[in-house]
Amino acid sequence: MNPKALHKISYGLYIVTSKKGDQINGQVANTVFQISNDPTTVAVSINKQNLTSEFIRDSKVFGVSVLAQEAPLSLIGRFGFKSGRQVDKFAGINYKPGITGVPCLTDHVLACMEAEVIQEVDAGTHHIFIGKVTGAEVLKEGIAMTYAYYHQIKKGTVPQTAPTYTPQKAERMEKMDKYVCNLCGYVYDPATGDPENGIAPDTPFEKLPEDWVCPVCGAGKDEFSKEE
Amino acid sequence: MNPKALHKISYGLYIVTSKKGDQINGQVANTVFQISNDPTTVAVSINKQNLTSEFIRDSKVFGVSVLAQEAPLSLIGRFGFKSGRQVDKFAGINYKPGITGVPCLTDHVLACMEAEVIQEVDAGTHHIFIGKVTGAEVLKEGIAMTYAYYHQIKKGTVPQTAPTYTPQKAERMEKMDKYVCNLCGYVYDPATGDPENGIAPDTPFEKLPEDWVCPVCGAGKDEFSKEE
Repeated sequence: MNPKALHKISYGLYIVTSKKGDQINGQVANTVFQISNDPTTVAVSINKQNLTSEFIRDSKVFGVSVLAQEAPLSLIGRFGFKSGRQVDKFAGINYKPGITGVPCLTDHVLACMEAEVIQEVDAGTHHIFIGKVTGAEVLKEGIAMTYAYYHQIKKGTVPQTAPTYTPQKAERMEKMDKYVCNLCGYVYDPATGDPENGIAPDTPFEKLPEDWVCPVCGAGKDEFSKEE
Repeated sequence: MNPKALHKISYGLYIVTSKKGDQINGQVANTVFQISNDPTTVAVSINKQNLTSEFIRDSKVFGVSVLAQEAPLSLIGRFGFKSGRQVDKFAGINYKPGITGVPCLTDHVLACMEAEVIQEVDAGTHHIFIGKVTGAEVLKEGIAMTYAYYHQIKKGTVPQTAPTYTPQKAERMEKMDKYVCNLCGYVYDPATGDPENGIAPDTPFEKLPEDWVCPVCGAGKDEFSKEE
């Protein structure tokens, strides 16, 4: 079995949100898909370890914010590589509550949906939540962020709780002098730089400002190792 | 609720195959996604009315052929707009059997997977089949066909049994003289022509050869109506 075959599956990139009492949380997910049209139902697959899973099981509602292609890595890092158990992911983030109270992000998002869970499927490491869509809104036109774009253009990484995470060394050995974040796996490629944070292409890792941090997870330079 | 919000969800395009006894069948699907990594599981959502659903429920195995971006409309038409109850969809198609006996298409396909069903979820109009992946192969490198590409570039249409089918008049009124296939909804746009079948851009519908057929479903010219 060649696991790379699985990488040919296409996905979008979403922030799936939920609530529990007066707390809200959200996380990056790539497995959101429509199941039926009448009634309109969508399904999301969420790792059981994640706080968002706990919130959805409690409140039986979830929201889906469809990320736009231009969404910054820092947004994906905040919602994809940090846990709501440690940080308030929504601090400083613009959002509005839906009818059910789940938050909908309003920046870098093309559309929002919210759904009431009608079925919860135990699928091993993940729960699949099937929800009846109770609200859906287009925020702006644009191109949706896809998982392929995130990986190829944005050079993003995959958290360990993602269905598509592969516990092997990343295969990125074309050139020397790339540096890997020990915390999240983000690779700093000097050829690309970090334009979102003012670092021009062709800036060697050693020349990055000392206060530069990983654009995905916020780790400092001392958390990076030269790629083997 | 704005149903267009649902259209912002990203999908790939796949031919999901199965077997029943010594019969094989397959259909176009857009909802294929990985659920977990250990064990490696994938899920597919299939309309209950479709023959492929019947075959998967019978044999408990399915295959997924990941379409390449260059896959022709005629291939999508054959597997997406015809039923295996009426035609042998594999006649003249190159494929090979997997370990479980489900067919894997070998042309216009980037990768193949096959899976044994470990869970079947009744989700209203559709079944979600969750399968343990028992085989996975990369056939060639390339860009996967996405649903967005199929719609925007290939100008493809959606069968009534798809989760994303919307039973409303298509919104394509930018210009006169487009013609719509009464059977499958494909729109002949003279500006684009039908290059896959030798029809150059800027060929009016009236000038198409009399033996020209719908590139998606094979209907004759007399099955087309001028778009309102």
